[in-house]
Amino acid sequence: MANAAAPAVDLPATRRAVETCIEDFLEGKQHAAAQHRMPAEVVQILRNFVSAGGKRLRPLLCICGWYAGGGVGDMTAVVQTAASLEMFHAFALIHDDLMDHSDTRRGNPTVHRSLAAHHSALRGQEVASRLGASGAILVGDLALAWSDELLQTAGLAPDRLAAVLPVIHSMRTEVMYGQYLDLCAAGDPTADLDAALTVARYKTAKYTCERPLHVGASLAGADPAVLKACTEYAIPLGEAFQLRDDLLGVYGAPEQTGKPVLDDLRDSKHTVLLAIALERADAAQHKVLRTLLGDPSLDNHDAIRIRDILTATGARAEVERMIHTLHAQAHHALEHAPFPPFIAQTLRRIADAATARTA
Amino acid sequence: MANAAAPAVDLPATRRAVETCIEDFLEGKQHAAAQHRMPAEVVQILRNFVSAGGKRLRPLLCICGWYAGGGVGDMTAVVQTAASLEMFHAFALIHDDLMDHSDTRRGNPTVHRSLAAHHSALRGQEVASRLGASGAILVGDLALAWSDELLQTAGLAPDRLAAVLPVIHSMRTEVMYGQYLDLCAAGDPTADLDAALTVARYKTAKYTCERPLHVGASLAGADPAVLKACTEYAIPLGEAFQLRDDLLGVYGAPEQTGKPVLDDLRDSKHTVLLAIALERADAAQHKVLRTLLGDPSLDNHDAIRIRDILTATGARAEVERMIHTLHAQAHHALEHAPFPPFIAQTLRRIADAATARTA
Repeated sequence: MANAAAPAVDLPATRRAVETCIEDFLEGKQHAAAQHRMPAEVVQILRNFVSAGGKRLRPLLCICGWYAGGGVGDMTAVVQTAASLEMFHAFALIHDDLMDHSDTRRGNPTVHRSLAAHHSALRGQEVASRLGASGAILVGDLALAWSDELLQTAGLAPDRLAAVLPVIHSMRTEVMYGQYLDLCAAGDPTADLDAALTVARYKTAKYTCERPLHVGASLAGADPAVLKACTEYAIPLGEAFQLRDDLLGVYGAPEQTGKPVLDDLRDSKHTVLLAIALERADAAQHKVLRTLLGDPSLDNHDAIRIRDILTATGARAEVERMIHTLHAQAHHALEHAPFPPFIAQTLRRIADAATARTA
Repeated sequence: MANAAAPAVDLPATRRAVETCIEDFLEGKQHAAAQHRMPAEVVQILRNFVSAGGKRLRPLLCICGWYAGGGVGDMTAVVQTAASLEMFHAFALIHDDLMDHSDTRRGNPTVHRSLAAHHSALRGQEVASRLGASGAILVGDLALAWSDELLQTAGLAPDRLAAVLPVIHSMRTEVMYGQYLDLCAAGDPTADLDAALTVARYKTAKYTCERPLHVGASLAGADPAVLKACTEYAIPLGEAFQLRDDLLGVYGAPEQTGKPVLDDLRDSKHTVLLAIALERADAAQHKVLRTLLGDPSLDNHDAIRIRDILTATGARAEVERMIHTLHAQAHHALEHAPFPPFIAQTLRRIADAATARTA
């Protein structure tokens, strides 16, 4: 059972170790670029982006997976592997922000906006904007290539690398399919709850929680029972995480989430929250949702009308209930998991923070 | 010395082996997607793109590098490694076509156009076009991830993989920087010949010729003298290849090159050809070039005026001379290279075909 006094992993220190690893890697890339007289802004903008914050949930879960699988001793290789997951996530976010035409992320300009601003000093606005978009594709591509370089140069023994690569390959393919599904469903929200849950599962539950735990556990040579327990904890946690994200996308405070609260509604993402609302809405509410969702000129007044309908239909309360149930499932999975107690305790704390967060 | 009767690698058969490897891999991905109920069009469009042709120069040079390094015996792993380079190239082209807003490649619609056409049946034209662009980012990302999967599952011994990975990592970073430089220079052509040659070196000479040879040679455990000889052959060959590409982009027959002849001029790529023309143009010619280059509405009549100036200034003839000299350098490098004679003979033929081609 949960014990508030049980020892747990020092998450802030672990987070710092991962951040230092990424920072050192990118500093090396910046020196190399200068030596080859390559443009400095490419690495600089990636550095700014990665260092601007983020929960570092994936690297933390990777390191927890390593402990869960019985990992002991020198952590250098596992920290660098965890860092490679964070670099992969930077790639995913950079391309995602471009596809969503988002202006800000973590309270800062997105990469395509930063690059456009960089070029606008010397070129016209239209050219700068195009260079921003194209450059962001390339910066994202570099982050993907470099996430692989971090993994391959982590110093893993060949048998450990061989154990972890299939997990990495599955993760990459799954998240790209998840993004594609998300893309196709956006702008066309329906009451199809299953479709919304499939996106949440591929885009978030597997990518954000299950795969990072599996990567870490595989590095430690974990047996199948440990991997299974990781899944039983990670999938409900990841779905709860995504549901919380959907609620924050509509009800969140921009100064806390770091992104404008209107973006999700303007893009009309096909979320579980909207699927439930559309299922329960009466004719009048349905018409309002259909008219406003996906409208690029949607304003604060429209957002209030949508929020009122999401609340009135009970969709908001239902999603909160689902988060509560999924959170309990994740906790329950930990009670029977063959993990060392200090790691079960850490994973409980992560589940609490990920589902109750405000940012 | 060159000997027309010397035995050489069967290039068509080698090309087919690489294509079969890619086709089998993508067929597996298509089955997996169907099993997980993922959208079929993603893999299908990538399959269409990869199977639509291409010179397969990079995989052929990779396999030549393996022979040059003394490779003998079972070729399964080296063929799959070569296939991973072709998959990487598919990634680069898909993102390149999107950044350049190109409509056709190899005579077929580009990936963003194919995806837009796929979605236009059910969604409005604007939404379909946006899904095409975003989807092409993701299909390119998948091709990059899958090129790595092909490499990692090629069955290479750990020491061979360790030898080849630094080459792969350099190649990925170099080509992305090269693309970025190309991007920034487009629309702003100058008489700066050095800058144009730097782009050609990073984007093509190293990426298309030197690195594939190094990948293959490293797989065979080649010594430094072999790697050095590969470079001495590859860099002039790659520069000649890019210069021929620049000429074909302006003077080529679209029915042979598979791409519209006006694209390069409309994008105003900063090529060696244009740099020389701008250097030599008189005031009147300079004004015409400045006015027409980069104009998105540039038509066939404008293209003829530009071609006439490129010819009149002697820029076209100068680029042909450069190709001739670089081609001779590549041949000369082979005379002293520590390669088996049949591979020197094959590389001579590749150099002849790559510099004299019409497509």
